[in-house]
Amino acid sequence: MTAGKFIVIEGLEGAGKTTAINTVAAVLKPHHDLVFTREPGGTPLAEALRTLIKQSVNDEPLTYKAELLMFYAARIQLIDNVIKPALQAGKWVVGDRHDMSTQAYQGGGRQLDAKFMSMLKQMVLGDFKPDLTIYMDIAPEIGLMRARQRGELDRIEKESLAFFERIRARYLEIARADPSVIIIDAAQDIDKVTDDIKIKLNQWLKFHPVN
Amino acid sequence: MTAGKFIVIEGLEGAGKTTAINTVAAVLKPHHDLVFTREPGGTPLAEALRTLIKQSVNDEPLTYKAELLMFYAARIQLIDNVIKPALQAGKWVVGDRHDMSTQAYQGGGRQLDAKFMSMLKQMVLGDFKPDLTIYMDIAPEIGLMRARQRGELDRIEKESLAFFERIRARYLEIARADPSVIIIDAAQDIDKVTDDIKIKLNQWLKFHPVN
Repeated sequence: MTAGKFIVIEGLEGAGKTTAINTVAAVLKPHHDLVFTREPGGTPLAEALRTLIKQSVNDEPLTYKAELLMFYAARIQLIDNVIKPALQAGKWVVGDRHDMSTQAYQGGGRQLDAKFMSMLKQMVLGDFKPDLTIYMDIAPEIGLMRARQRGELDRIEKESLAFFERIRARYLEIARADPSVIIIDAAQDIDKVTDDIKIKLNQWLKFHPVN
Repeated sequence: MTAGKFIVIEGLEGAGKTTAINTVAAVLKPHHDLVFTREPGGTPLAEALRTLIKQSVNDEPLTYKAELLMFYAARIQLIDNVIKPALQAGKWVVGDRHDMSTQAYQGGGRQLDAKFMSMLKQMVLGDFKPDLTIYMDIAPEIGLMRARQRGELDRIEKESLAFFERIRARYLEIARADPSVIIIDAAQDIDKVTDDIKIKLNQWLKFHPVN
């Protein structure tokens, strides 16, 4: 039986995740059926949780713990109801963010307790993880400037630069320790970024044959 | 500084929780400012989570893990934004369900992993717990019949009687091990139930003076 692969794109706001997703899709599309996901979200319930997380700031203070629990509730719905069935059907899944975002934003950015974070992750996800993660590395000043030019950055913009520096540091820490993560220098011009992704993805594909 | 107390009413559907809440309120009202909560719910976000938990059955399969995480997200919002501020202001909080429901329904009823359950509880709630819990004990056959006569029991009625037997067994197991839980025989007629609650609550109040 042929099983698909789960490839995730990660990075700060303005790192160029959409470009990366399109590049990955272009490389894979001739060979595989693709399913695209985003987190938090990707199922009716997970999208409702995404909306609640974003809205709640106006309605009532969202505790860090509740935010974290809602991210994991959305994630396990997406994994069990979308990602795993797709992989089992031999499709490839391309994810816009996954658990590495939680580790970086909640663990690094919000500095939630490391033991709490790792226990919760293990309890909810078990051994499930992406086959490949492409981490788009960028300095927060540049990423935020790009995102601001696009008119995004509502809630998140209120956070300090130090918050985003901590997120990037955690991203890099994880990426350097995990051989399933490819680091892309996302500060380069877009053609170079796209080329880098294609080259590194094709290298990875050579060593991860399917069928 | 005077701090309030947190009193929770627990039990199966049809156990008479509403009657118990009204009885407790009548005893306490002359002496204390009261705040009433229900779980899941009690804050805008927690009520939205309550709605999602109930609705999601129709939209997509709700995984047991996501259900559990959403219960705890709702609970920590309620504790941090409503219960703790009320207690600190010297108010007494009367809760329609709290964590014992999760232990009984998800732990006992759904038979979720005990280690997972206790670690999550400890991580999210820490040492926070009710000062007093009044557990309304009833055989599921009787409780469900009562609830059915009221026209309730939508989603939950689909569960088997064995499910409710497991819930009751877990309720009793916890109640017998925890001296902060009072057990009321809720199968008695309503006047006797009300009297029992009043007597046991007043006994408890004698040994837990405030001011």
